[in-house]
Amino acid sequence: MSQLLGVAVLGAGHMGADHIRRLDSVVSGARVAAVADPAKERAEEAVAGLDGVLVHTEVAAALDAPGVEAVLIASPGPAHEEALLAAFARGLPVLCEKPMVPDSAGALRIVEAEARLGRRLAQVGFMRRYDAEYMGLKSLLDSGRLGRPLMLHCTHRNVSSPPGFTSAMLINSSVSHEIDAARWLLGQELTAVTVLRPRPSAHAPEGLLDPQFVLFETAGGALVDVEILVNSGFGYQVRCEAVCEAGSVRIGDAHTMVVTSAGGAYQEVAQDYLVRFADAYDREVREWVDATRRGQVTGPSAWDGYAASVVAEAGVRAQDTGDRMTVELAPRPDLYGQNPISR
Amino acid sequence: MSQLLGVAVLGAGHMGADHIRRLDSVVSGARVAAVADPAKERAEEAVAGLDGVLVHTEVAAALDAPGVEAVLIASPGPAHEEALLAAFARGLPVLCEKPMVPDSAGALRIVEAEARLGRRLAQVGFMRRYDAEYMGLKSLLDSGRLGRPLMLHCTHRNVSSPPGFTSAMLINSSVSHEIDAARWLLGQELTAVTVLRPRPSAHAPEGLLDPQFVLFETAGGALVDVEILVNSGFGYQVRCEAVCEAGSVRIGDAHTMVVTSAGGAYQEVAQDYLVRFADAYDREVREWVDATRRGQVTGPSAWDGYAASVVAEAGVRAQDTGDRMTVELAPRPDLYGQNPISR
Amino acid sequence: MSQLLGVAVLGAGHMGADHIRRLDSVVSGARVAAVADPAKERAEEAVAGLDGVLVHTEVAAALDAPGVEAVLIASPGPAHEEALLAAFARGLPVLCEKPMVPDSAGALRIVEAEARLGRRLAQVGFMRRYDAEYMGLKSLLDSGRLGRPLMLHCTHRNVSSPPGFTSAMLINSSVSHEIDAARWLLGQELTAVTVLRPRPSAHAPEGLLDPQFVLFETAGGALVDVEILVNSGFGYQVRCEAVCEAGSVRIGDAHTMVVTSAGGAYQEVAQDYLVRFADAYDREVREWVDATRRGQVTGPSAWDGYAASVVAEAGVRAQDTGDRMTVELAPRPDLYGQNPISR
Amino acid sequence: MSQLLGVAVLGAGHMGADHIRRLDSVVSGARVAAVADPAKERAEEAVAGLDGVLVHTEVAAALDAPGVEAVLIASPGPAHEEALLAAFARGLPVLCEKPMVPDSAGALRIVEAEARLGRRLAQVGFMRRYDAEYMGLKSLLDSGRLGRPLMLHCTHRNVSSPPGFTSAMLINSSVSHEIDAARWLLGQELTAVTVLRPRPSAHAPEGLLDPQFVLFETAGGALVDVEILVNSGFGYQVRCEAVCEAGSVRIGDAHTMVVTSAGGAYQEVAQDYLVRFADAYDREVREWVDATRRGQVTGPSAWDGYAASVVAEAGVRAQDTGDRMTVELAPRPDLYGQNPISR
Repeated sequence: MSQLLGVAVLGAGHMGADHIRRLDSVVSGARVAAVADPAKERAEEAVAGLDGVLVHTEVAAALDAPGVEAVLIASPGPAHEEALLAAFARGLPVLCEKPMVPDSAGALRIVEAEARLGRRLAQVGFMRRYDAEYMGLKSLLDSGRLGRPLMLHCTHRNVSSPPGFTSAMLINSSVSHEIDAARWLLGQELTAVTVLRPRPSAHAPEGLLDPQFVLFETAGGALVDVEILVNSGFGYQVRCEAVCEAGSVRIGDAHTMVVTSAGGAYQEVAQDYLVRFADAYDREVREWVDATRRGQVTGPSAWDGYAASVVAEAGVRAQDTGDRMTVELAPRPDLYGQNPISR
Repeated sequence: MSQLLGVAVLGAGHMGADHIRRLDSVVSGARVAAVADPAKERAEEAVAGLDGVLVHTEVAAALDAPGVEAVLIASPGPAHEEALLAAFARGLPVLCEKPMVPDSAGALRIVEAEARLGRRLAQVGFMRRYDAEYMGLKSLLDSGRLGRPLMLHCTHRNVSSPPGFTSAMLINSSVSHEIDAARWLLGQELTAVTVLRPRPSAHAPEGLLDPQFVLFETAGGALVDVEILVNSGFGYQVRCEAVCEAGSVRIGDAHTMVVTSAGGAYQEVAQDYLVRFADAYDREVREWVDATRRGQVTGPSAWDGYAASVVAEAGVRAQDTGDRMTVELAPRPDLYGQNPISR
Repeated sequence: MSQLLGVAVLGAGHMGADHIRRLDSVVSGARVAAVADPAKERAEEAVAGLDGVLVHTEVAAALDAPGVEAVLIASPGPAHEEALLAAFARGLPVLCEKPMVPDSAGALRIVEAEARLGRRLAQVGFMRRYDAEYMGLKSLLDSGRLGRPLMLHCTHRNVSSPPGFTSAMLINSSVSHEIDAARWLLGQELTAVTVLRPRPSAHAPEGLLDPQFVLFETAGGALVDVEILVNSGFGYQVRCEAVCEAGSVRIGDAHTMVVTSAGGAYQEVAQDYLVRFADAYDREVREWVDATRRGQVTGPSAWDGYAASVVAEAGVRAQDTGDRMTVELAPRPDLYGQNPISR
Repeated sequence: MSQLLGVAVLGAGHMGADHIRRLDSVVSGARVAAVADPAKERAEEAVAGLDGVLVHTEVAAALDAPGVEAVLIASPGPAHEEALLAAFARGLPVLCEKPMVPDSAGALRIVEAEARLGRRLAQVGFMRRYDAEYMGLKSLLDSGRLGRPLMLHCTHRNVSSPPGFTSAMLINSSVSHEIDAARWLLGQELTAVTVLRPRPSAHAPEGLLDPQFVLFETAGGALVDVEILVNSGFGYQVRCEAVCEAGSVRIGDAHTMVVTSAGGAYQEVAQDYLVRFADAYDREVREWVDATRRGQVTGPSAWDGYAASVVAEAGVRAQDTGDRMTVELAPRPDLYGQNPISR
């Protein structure tokens, strides 16, 4: 391993550019070795100011560039499967933004390919597992001090939805974060899902079913409910309350500075996930770089990416039909260990 | 009207004794004129120290006692219907503890009897409508500043369940408070109910399905979810978050004194509803006394009591069957006005 | 004692009218038996709607009116001494709004007169002792759980100062509340005072030294600091943090309903002391009525009123001179017991 | 400039070892090029696992080692002056832990030496300026939205004092953080200081005056009060409330996860400054590395280090004498610009 881990970044859009900045000037121990994006100008803009980073339009060229030792996939979801398989073919460790693969059939092919390799190479970008509050909550739940978790109440609110956002995306793009967080916090697979659709907000674009209320049942008999509201108007707010046999815990009210003026006490709410989870993204990439330099793969696995996509697909069906849908997973390869959930 | 409103209190148990104390020494403008309880000694204990209050074992005797101008019913639920009809027969205004009548058929008979009278005499003891936080929430929702309410997230937790508490009572005794609060806050009838039953807590008595998660749909397309957990172990906690088109509001975290010691910042949680809602009970009885002296009936109506019992019955069926149950109300008599919900 | 305690209310201004309302329609067990105010019309307006209450212009006439059994003094401070002595002469129990007497020499005459009577008749209207948060704080300090109190940090903010408010009044009208609260919470006399005067706020009227920062030392070696800011612009905010050997406690952040909208989470701040301390006033008068009917005097004593006025006078001298001023109290009569502070 | 800034770290104790770790594995763009510590074994332990870092016992040897481009001073305070001058002699940019120099005479010599150089090389380690909450507070104050600051109320509490901690150190080691923070937040020099010493806590070691209450006056007529309590028993708590003409702002209550159990709602308090200010230390060193690589010096200046030591010395005199002491600063060299306070 060289002094700085050479990383090929695939995709130089909003998320990719942010990861390029992170690898270059925030996280120690890594450097950007190559970038690939079909839109070459965008990629060149993202690496402006970095010495000696070659820009490619083809994934294979970037992976084969000199000094590339690992891959960070930040391209659009439909491009992930091919990129993951190309990284596997070269034995390169890879951090892949979520969704790992948009559909569960493709996700299963990734799981099977990695199982055939016989060793883990892929980590999926479920960055909430690296947020300080989520980590504190996980640690408290695992300690057993509050007994068994009975319910998780989750809130996921955005200021407004981007153009083209569909009702299905409330489940498979937004709630997919809660799907992984719930599996990870509880250490249990999700087994069924029901979706309730109140009358849409006046602030939802025509045709978008916003908000929705999603209910998951788990293998251990716990219940997870998620309010998803992507046109809240007021902020990006992610909260989770775990109700356990001996107490409850709440995260996500992390306003700090209290301003009192004009008749009230006021605390700002974050407007954006890159602000709310800035530290989580930094920690995720730092831990991935550190583990990779040690020759390890430790974060959310391809199995986690697969399970999330199966649950999300069941959620979209539940949303369409109004019925409770059960979740059916393929058998879990031994590669992913005894515990159903990684890390 | 005499200087002090003479009140006959029916029932001298836990709740009745508390109301006797309230009428005697907290609320101005009223006095206890008579008490009835089949257990005469209990009633005599409850009025010890009050001058000239006669104790009866029969409801009729108490209602006909000299100086009785109004009735407060705090006897067990099954005795309510007869007591309400007896008060109606005498034209006496009455404040009736919840449930107004345990079953919806009996509740409908009360509604019909009052409709025949052609004037309101009954107020039902939904005291949350008199809690300062709920009043603030109602006032904010009614102002329209936050737009239309989309969802109510409710939490209802007790320290532990009393002996004999059944799974059905989680709905028709505990959640019935949220049923009324939701109808009142939203100004909408509830139209359907679904009950989810996670695996019970280790602290629930054998056979009690605790916690439960109850979902109500409303006539206006809003969604109401209620966590009911009667063996939380840690406190009596009643919270409500209203999610609206232009913002959200939360009540029920009303801890005040912050103690920092031994590594943490700590705020006490109330252990009991008589503590949490002490002011609400006082305000409820004070407003009832004031209105009654002015010859008015203003609080939650018999219709509210009836609607709550219909919804609770549907909830118990939903709990039993696991299915979504719709709610069917009888036509509302004109007596109860245009707006579906009183006050 | 008759069924309802007959109270003569002296003074029918803002505070007097509020107490008349409270005695008539909030607190049980009392009635307004007479009212005196030199401005007869104002008094008549205050008792409009009350049956059979005679209005007087002279204190003596009101005290001698039929049915008067106790006195509530809400007239301007300069009238208090004469009124208190008139009540003493008739053996009438009295609740006297603060300041008991504006100057310490007059206050000492009241203490001496009551000591000559040989029994307590006077209670001073330091209503913070009846506020639920202050009571909780007092109870926690007295429990010894947090060890000895080392410091009290106090904040006292008003929206704006009324016309005619002087720099001395920041001490002897506003901070006098903290003077009593500190003595009561700590159970110690205050022994010295220093006043710091930062450059005044642009929102202070010309010539008013606002804010000020007042430091008290106590007989037990504790320190009390008070920020007084009467033109805060944003609210009426009264906070107190007690720093003890084994922890700290804070009261006064009692906002409850959290509204999240437009990019922030918001809690209202009370604008007025009659709102913030509404319950404390009610509880104060209720406990005074109850104790009086039992033939007892239990609240803040004439000694407390005297001590507060001596400390306030030293504070005004400290404010004028910029120096630390010591506080010298007359010997405490045995009537006021072993403990320096009542209740 | 090479790809990674080569830093010589002077001192490999608690703080030095933490900075070595930070430069090596947290902050991007830098590497540890040399370490000096008289205790060679300690230094060797601190660099275990780092490739090719030479350990020295002499400062000069470390500064002259190959690849050294900048210096981070984390040795004990008495060694700082010589190390700073040695760095100046070599033209090396330097980040110096606080106190810059223990006494104000030595601090002035550093200011004069840097002024003679005619360009800034030194940055002082006042890391609170890099804490997210302090940065938010500074930004809000500078925006002018709340008008002129009138007062700062500061709290500084430690769990317990280390062996050998003296009463003077409460001022010149602990409160020195507030001295810099107040100068920076207000943009004003401190002009006078008074120290009040309540009776010590039972938990203070024999002879230590703990707590103390320190009052600073500023050139602009604001007031700064600081509670310093180094044996609080419960946590490391740093709070600041700025009271302005149009509102107040509070930072430092940044508990996040709320655990409700056993009758109360509970939030953990940090126990240690390395935990509370972990992000601030990271951000401080990252910004220093970035600026240094760009050839700039941007953080707290030698003048800030000097001013803090003058104020602290006046504070210790005020503590000894019980009197208010004025603060006299030498003329400020032009090098440090128009604004009295850097950054």
